[in-house]
Amino acid sequence: MALTLYELGGLDDRRYSLYSWRARYALAHKGLTPEYKPVRISDKSAIAFSRQDKVPILIDGEQVVQDSWRIAQHLEAKPGASLFGGEIGQSLSRFFNSWVDRTIVPRLAPMIALDVTGIQDEEDARHLRGTMEKAFGKPLEELAASRDKDIVGFRRLLDPARAQLRAQPFISGSQPAYADYILFSPLQWARIVSPFPILEESDALFTWRERMLDLHGGLGRTTPARV
Amino acid sequence: MALTLYELGGLDDRRYSLYSWRARYALAHKGLTPEYKPVRISDKSAIAFSRQDKVPILIDGEQVVQDSWRIAQHLEAKPGASLFGGEIGQSLSRFFNSWVDRTIVPRLAPMIALDVTGIQDEEDARHLRGTMEKAFGKPLEELAASRDKDIVGFRRLLDPARAQLRAQPFISGSQPAYADYILFSPLQWARIVSPFPILEESDALFTWRERMLDLHGGLGRTTPARV
Repeated sequence: MALTLYELGGLDDRRYSLYSWRARYALAHKGLTPEYKPVRISDKSAIAFSRQDKVPILIDGEQVVQDSWRIAQHLEAKPGASLFGGEIGQSLSRFFNSWVDRTIVPRLAPMIALDVTGIQDEEDARHLRGTMEKAFGKPLEELAASRDKDIVGFRRLLDPARAQLRAQPFISGSQPAYADYILFSPLQWARIVSPFPILEESDALFTWRERMLDLHGGLGRTTPARV
Repeated sequence: MALTLYELGGLDDRRYSLYSWRARYALAHKGLTPEYKPVRISDKSAIAFSRQDKVPILIDGEQVVQDSWRIAQHLEAKPGASLFGGEIGQSLSRFFNSWVDRTIVPRLAPMIALDVTGIQDEEDARHLRGTMEKAFGKPLEELAASRDKDIVGFRRLLDPARAQLRAQPFISGSQPAYADYILFSPLQWARIVSPFPILEESDALFTWRERMLDLHGGLGRTTPARV
């Protein structure tokens, strides 16, 4: 069955869409390769069929699945390695998803939002600036200016994830699973859009991110990055 | 094989030891009933055999298992319902454990530390006051005085756990598992030692805590509480 993944595309065909990286890795985990279709952040006419304006969207034959969590649930029903490892694993992956989306992403976004505009054409950059400045109530330059200070607290927020890596190579255990893809996605987004070092090289999470980039035939390295 | 659980005991035999509630529920989950032995916080001679001064300690025949997480892992090897549901579930339970211990407990403890001294005799109360005032660098009265303000941010911290309950009755899914016991333990500690309403009655987590109290034959209601 033909699979298509709609995601954001920027300059030089950079695929920078944060949540799309969860879907990309979940597909690869199941041994599936979709056709990737870029969508402009300032012009969502390509996904008008979905009657909403958010990516990622997975088209699986006749089915249209929107939202990275729903895509993961949809893919879990397919053959191949499990993304969750059963009901408890799926429930706690959902908790991990909430933690990353409510705690990590909102503190990461202001530090790199200005840099996102650097990998977009003028029209997309203007659109994103409008959305982000409205959300944060500040010019993107002002948000970026305090990041040398903000990064300290941000890195500390990651402590519970970092603690996982003391005894095992992945957040999910001896092998990567969907929880790894959840946390990888904002950190992958950061390295694609920004030269700012979100993780120090001495950080266990930095080494883990490298391992994540190598997975599935180096899937994470298939789009240009700035660090 | 005889099982013994050492845990803190207070006035009127209140069993208020935070992490012990994880071990109590994990034992019940496996259908096991230990002999409970109280230890005074100011006099740990009862557990001198363990060559350290922390509870809970589980004695399982010849084995001495200390630390709630190690106790859970030890019990998982026994027959009966799984506490974790496999490797991914166990890994993410460990993440959940880190999140609760690093994020939730340190913000809860200052709000109710003064009340803990109210369920202890003079000697234990003096001991705990010394430890807590050293840890927080403030008199317990001062910590308690700001709790009407502090509780607002504390309740918000619980949002990722609260989100779990939108679609399912337990943190772990349709049935309770170890992650539920992890979060239950500080909230159970709070209700045993303090009349301060940590959770509002309209909160999904309040209703969940009631469900948790009812589990395993009402195990959570076997010690006197203040709310």
